[in-house]
Amino acid sequence: MKNTALQRPQPVRWDHGTLYLLDQTRLPLETVIDPYTTVEQVWDAIRRLKVRGAPAIGIAGAYGLVLAMRSQQHLTHEDFLAQLDTQAAYLDSARPTAVNLHWALQRLLRQARQLHQQPVPEIYQALEQTAIQIHAEDRQLCRRIGDHGRPLIKTGMGILTHCNAGALATAELGTALAPLYLAHEAGVSFRVYADETRPLLQGARLTTWELQQAGIDVTLICDNMAATLMAQDCIDMVIVGTDRVAANGDVANKIGTLGVAILAQYFQIPFYVACPLLHHRLRHPSGEAIVIEERAQDEVTHLGQRRTAPVGMAVRNPAFDVTPHTLVGADHRARNLAASYGETLRAGLWPRSSRRLNQRFDASY
Amino acid sequence: MKNTALQRPQPVRWDHGTLYLLDQTRLPLETVIDPYTTVEQVWDAIRRLKVRGAPAIGIAGAYGLVLAMRSQQHLTHEDFLAQLDTQAAYLDSARPTAVNLHWALQRLLRQARQLHQQPVPEIYQALEQTAIQIHAEDRQLCRRIGDHGRPLIKTGMGILTHCNAGALATAELGTALAPLYLAHEAGVSFRVYADETRPLLQGARLTTWELQQAGIDVTLICDNMAATLMAQDCIDMVIVGTDRVAANGDVANKIGTLGVAILAQYFQIPFYVACPLLHHRLRHPSGEAIVIEERAQDEVTHLGQRRTAPVGMAVRNPAFDVTPHTLVGADHRARNLAASYGETLRAGLWPRSSRRLNQRFDASY
Repeated sequence: MKNTALQRPQPVRWDHGTLYLLDQTRLPLETVIDPYTTVEQVWDAIRRLKVRGAPAIGIAGAYGLVLAMRSQQHLTHEDFLAQLDTQAAYLDSARPTAVNLHWALQRLLRQARQLHQQPVPEIYQALEQTAIQIHAEDRQLCRRIGDHGRPLIKTGMGILTHCNAGALATAELGTALAPLYLAHEAGVSFRVYADETRPLLQGARLTTWELQQAGIDVTLICDNMAATLMAQDCIDMVIVGTDRVAANGDVANKIGTLGVAILAQYFQIPFYVACPLLHHRLRHPSGEAIVIEERAQDEVTHLGQRRTAPVGMAVRNPAFDVTPHTLVGADHRARNLAASYGETLRAGLWPRSSRRLNQRFDASY
Repeated sequence: MKNTALQRPQPVRWDHGTLYLLDQTRLPLETVIDPYTTVEQVWDAIRRLKVRGAPAIGIAGAYGLVLAMRSQQHLTHEDFLAQLDTQAAYLDSARPTAVNLHWALQRLLRQARQLHQQPVPEIYQALEQTAIQIHAEDRQLCRRIGDHGRPLIKTGMGILTHCNAGALATAELGTALAPLYLAHEAGVSFRVYADETRPLLQGARLTTWELQQAGIDVTLICDNMAATLMAQDCIDMVIVGTDRVAANGDVANKIGTLGVAILAQYFQIPFYVACPLLHHRLRHPSGEAIVIEERAQDEVTHLGQRRTAPVGMAVRNPAFDVTPHTLVGADHRARNLAASYGETLRAGLWPRSSRRLNQRFDASY
């Protein structure tokens, strides 16, 4: 049975040479889609978090570089490639910690160098096609994660998620939310609980909005209510995304994920991490090696423009945390016994066939 | 060594027949102490949370009833007692779930009835003395909790607390914060981490402020950062207050307490509950019997006046949670082995000699 999904948001769209971005800073109150025709506009949109989520930033950045080069096709090869480097470095500076952005831009640069014997307009055409390809690959990756995770979602379940690893962060469907979208389309009825995700409220502002748009039953809670909902048997599984995976399966994700994983273990609730399989890119042996970004204090001391904490207050504001691989999976008893179990349970939802997709998740959800 | 404490806030003060309340709704940005001379003003202050914290509300309510009756001393006995009942019922309606308020008002009513053969002005005098006595008893109770818990605080410790069970909630010193104040006065150097405590931010607004006023090293975190700080070995103990204790030692407290207790168990960190000993008043056999108040949705969907979640969003907003007694104490290994252990560890910091203090904690922190 196909369910009539209301709408699935597309954060990034490319239409005949114009980039369209859904302005995520105005969600959930206003749905505004702006056209972008210059690289400066795209830089600004990335900087101001109008587009956010590692994959979506990478896709937008790739299109931004295409926009930058469109008017440069009269240049010599040498000048075109030099200008490409300059524009890529400029775009990269919009969000320095966004590894997806860097990766997408580098992919375009590599390609241009490989094609340096072609006429400049053909190099430009190839850049546009590659940007479209990066976009399509992410869509395909999310769908594969969704296919892989969909059988986990059963009618009547309560499912907790943290932060936004949804359609808004990717080309389509998201990572953690992809199984939910596909289950909903298949007519499975379930309820999602969305952690609000302090301090930046991605759960309250974005996850609730996109699930509501799709007609999925979603309930907003404060982060500190998850334990009580688990104690009340409202939660049957937890599914989150990840920003970075270590070689041993430890996962870095939005601050608060570790706490949810520990609660899930206490209440014996399956805890899944939805992400692509990237063994060849796992540069950290374990989560301990992952450096956690500490963000600005005013994210914690202010709500919008209003100060809520005393002047001069010391603040900790780690943006991410690291969940040990021992907390990821479906069978907490087996895990505690150090029994052997399959890769899927050991490190969440790995779509095994996605290895060739050179996608990378990074610290910008 | 005596440490020069900067200032310890007094939420309630009675001075020659005038009640002074620190306006907690204007903290932490402004320190405003207003005089109160009429019962209507006190009703309004309780209603608007200018005074909050179960013990502080009880004390303010007792003085409010005294203010109500001052101009009624010309009445006959019968009319005076009738008026006393009316005014007590009026005050009680300011915050119906605040059991401390109800208890304090009932204590004054009982006393007036016992003294019904005295002249009315003497009954009035006795009421004022009893209000002062309620205030003094709470001060004494908090100090006893502080004396009991102070030896737990060692130099160099990191101490996590949740919500505000401090001086602002009581006559002085607080419950959870009392051991910290006394340790600080004794020259012990330690760092407090204050959970911001969504949705109403009592930690960010009040706990940080009162500890900062006292010159205690305090760092604000979002609730969902506690797990990471524990993983980073920043936290050596957790101490919280409680709104209600069941006969088996389960404790109801501000939403988020249960999650912190589970994290403390996972990281093998002592988790203490600071409260008076009230066996004769424990009407709930276990935490399961405690009804948890569900509060208004806009506390979660709005920050101040600004909406942050989509219109029409479903919300859960339980104000309290229940922490099972198995999670309270200092030795998680012993607990897990169901070993026998002392009462102090079984149910937190019980000042054993406080039984005669007829104080009651309730759901209004």
